[in-house]
Amino acid sequence: MLNPADDAFLSRLASDLPEGTLGPAEPRHLTEPRGRWIGQGALARPRSTEDVARIMAAAQAARVGVVPFSGGTGLVGGQIRPDGPAPVILSLERMAAVRRVRPDENVMEVEAGAILTSVHAAAEAAGRRFPLWLASQGSARIGGLLATNAGGLHVLRYGMARDLCLGVEAVLADGRVIHGLSRLRKDNTGYDLRHLLIGSEGTLGIITAASLRLFPAEGAVATALLTVPSPATALELLARAEARLPGQVSAFEIMSKVGFDFITEVIPDLSLPFTPPEWSVLIEIELAPDADADAAMAGLYMEADEAGLVSDGQIAASGPARDRLWHLREAIPDANRRIGAVSSHDISVPLAELPGFIATAGAAIAALGPLRVNAFGHLGDGNLHYNVFPPKGAAAQEFRHLRDAVKQTVHDLVDAAGGSVSAEHGIGRLKVGDLARYGDPAKLFAMRAIKAALDPSGILNPGAVLPEA
Amino acid sequence: MLNPADDAFLSRLASDLPEGTLGPAEPRHLTEPRGRWIGQGALARPRSTEDVARIMAAAQAARVGVVPFSGGTGLVGGQIRPDGPAPVILSLERMAAVRRVRPDENVMEVEAGAILTSVHAAAEAAGRRFPLWLASQGSARIGGLLATNAGGLHVLRYGMARDLCLGVEAVLADGRVIHGLSRLRKDNTGYDLRHLLIGSEGTLGIITAASLRLFPAEGAVATALLTVPSPATALELLARAEARLPGQVSAFEIMSKVGFDFITEVIPDLSLPFTPPEWSVLIEIELAPDADADAAMAGLYMEADEAGLVSDGQIAASGPARDRLWHLREAIPDANRRIGAVSSHDISVPLAELPGFIATAGAAIAALGPLRVNAFGHLGDGNLHYNVFPPKGAAAQEFRHLRDAVKQTVHDLVDAAGGSVSAEHGIGRLKVGDLARYGDPAKLFAMRAIKAALDPSGILNPGAVLPEA
Repeated sequence: MLNPADDAFLSRLASDLPEGTLGPAEPRHLTEPRGRWIGQGALARPRSTEDVARIMAAAQAARVGVVPFSGGTGLVGGQIRPDGPAPVILSLERMAAVRRVRPDENVMEVEAGAILTSVHAAAEAAGRRFPLWLASQGSARIGGLLATNAGGLHVLRYGMARDLCLGVEAVLADGRVIHGLSRLRKDNTGYDLRHLLIGSEGTLGIITAASLRLFPAEGAVATALLTVPSPATALELLARAEARLPGQVSAFEIMSKVGFDFITEVIPDLSLPFTPPEWSVLIEIELAPDADADAAMAGLYMEADEAGLVSDGQIAASGPARDRLWHLREAIPDANRRIGAVSSHDISVPLAELPGFIATAGAAIAALGPLRVNAFGHLGDGNLHYNVFPPKGAAAQEFRHLRDAVKQTVHDLVDAAGGSVSAEHGIGRLKVGDLARYGDPAKLFAMRAIKAALDPSGILNPGAVLPEA
Repeated sequence: MLNPADDAFLSRLASDLPEGTLGPAEPRHLTEPRGRWIGQGALARPRSTEDVARIMAAAQAARVGVVPFSGGTGLVGGQIRPDGPAPVILSLERMAAVRRVRPDENVMEVEAGAILTSVHAAAEAAGRRFPLWLASQGSARIGGLLATNAGGLHVLRYGMARDLCLGVEAVLADGRVIHGLSRLRKDNTGYDLRHLLIGSEGTLGIITAASLRLFPAEGAVATALLTVPSPATALELLARAEARLPGQVSAFEIMSKVGFDFITEVIPDLSLPFTPPEWSVLIEIELAPDADADAAMAGLYMEADEAGLVSDGQIAASGPARDRLWHLREAIPDANRRIGAVSSHDISVPLAELPGFIATAGAAIAALGPLRVNAFGHLGDGNLHYNVFPPKGAAAQEFRHLRDAVKQTVHDLVDAAGGSVSAEHGIGRLKVGDLARYGDPAKLFAMRAIKAALDPSGILNPGAVLPEA
């Protein structure tokens, strides 16, 4: 059983830390984007890894919970402890330095509190690129992006957050510091703690800094919005694109008519460039700087057209036109929020199962009530955001009673298809029950054993990922 | 303290297993490529994951060590237990099936005993490619390649073995089976046990099967052998190649005059196509199938020539010419073996430190005696095979007394440069002391905690990676 971060604990801890490290939490530390939980706890904002180590050592000695807080953009409640003994909320916002950029080695070293857009900017200033790209990039911080193994729009080509990280510095539950920052591409000396910490959502250690992989500045890019008859033809289009342009397809997003209808419904000032088709894909290719990306895209379009895979489309011929297409894609989550979902799901299934899943799940949801499904997202990765909404004119609240049934219907079908009930958002507190229900028993056994070994008092993000002991 | 796999244990175990599963070890199970150790133990050759689980459960109950044996090609003794209570040698050679190839999803599922060349062949038969490529591929098996996170010739473009694996099926110390085979590109449900098991060298679990990533069949390839003035210019050439052809440089190997001299010395029937230069690089690029790779390589050569980065070179214009260049590269380890090394090192350092390391280490080795250094390998990854040999005409045996001093000199300089004393070969039994000496203390603490949690009796590959408890 944990103890609360009470006044006695905090004043003892304060005497060990530079003045101003501790203080009351602000509202932004206690709320989260979906408004499901309200947090609690005292705020610690350390300025150095040593101070993080002091906080952890004191928390472990006193058995006080520590909830790491990064950009606060997580969608599964990993950053919020709504009940139980009050924790220390450990925000790394003051450790936000880009320590060093090495374009010659395509590596940068950043502190965990660095905001993703500032990491992008630092890479660009050195003529390089950090290709992790997602909607919340103006707020999300590197520590949280790694702790949750964030995905985003360029996973198809560049991988998940873990694939973009060469090493981490991290503080363990007892305050020990793993000095794992590395500029090495190859290092087979012992267990890969980097990959264990990445995606563990702050339950095994606090990431305080990271070495990130950089890539050359963007080459020749072409972007297109193509109308496809079905998800199955979208996948055929993807296969042809990858065969023609191996390793050069950088985004492949699917969008449904429902998503565009939502935009029309709630974002009237965003005019659509077409009558919304049932299904469309946003495809982006990136070639070498001197290549003719427009010609490559036109060639792909012709091949797809001849094969009957696309029925219409537009190729963005310039930066602004490209931005407009992406703006459409990015307006979908915004429209979703304004409509208000009954239940949202971040799922992946094997590519070949995707069309069948979309059909089966659509029918199963329809059987539950007059609901609308907006399935969209990273088709190239087998990852859909499968969100379920009330009928037009109704409020989500009226269908709240269907939420659990909707969720279980979707997740059961995902599980039956060999999929994942959390493709890129993580487990947090929202999906602890799902992990217990769908997770492999031996995997869960091993996870609990590792958690107990590295955090024997259970102070690190208690209640996230695994049930509180 | 472990118990030996004695007759009583083995006859009990045999009664639980299909006939013929247990038997005496053959010489190939008891020797290793560098001839440093002689193994011992009883051989188990299970035909199914269930049988592996039975063996593990029995071994844990009896506290008998289990040494997983894969292709037997490891260079650090991970597959050999030379002393202590006799273990079960667990060979997966009878579980060698390619269970399924799914070209539509670019995934294949293979059993751990599948030999790498048979995996290559199965991928090619489906019009795809599995790009893990290394000298021992005719013997190395997938289980060992993953357990050691093998590297090889295409890491620059395709990553290490871990980057090519979507999931594993594995048996834990107590016989539980993690069913982690996955066709998913994105799955953020809990700790990444795949990456923990990969590279753990059989000390945390037995990998019994894997889902592997496939890639399109080879596109347009060009290969060149270029003479460079120095390692520093080789790195400049690499940077220019990656700027011109982002993501399309698939190999970048450095070779020294010493390596070519060795070939002349001991492989006289392999005639060199030039007077060996002090340094040369073998560069391979791979473009889309319809691209003109020869023209791209010629353009790179011209740019490099104008910049003074190359002084000579040959571009392979055909398949056989390309094979001849690779044959030269692959002859170097063979020549090394025939000469006989005083000490061999598989090291990586940050790219920018490489030229300095080569100069400093060369001087330090020269100060120890009249030794010859053959530094060669995967320069693009910062990974050198830095091998030290006796002077011409002398035998390694005569310089055996310098082995420890040579090794410590090289490894101390690697460590000082922020490098790794095992870039791709792993720790095995050879480098347990090096890991203890150079490893981060908090990392070692966490590794011991994880080992104790997942293998409390210490039966999994005892003495490998971490000292025997």
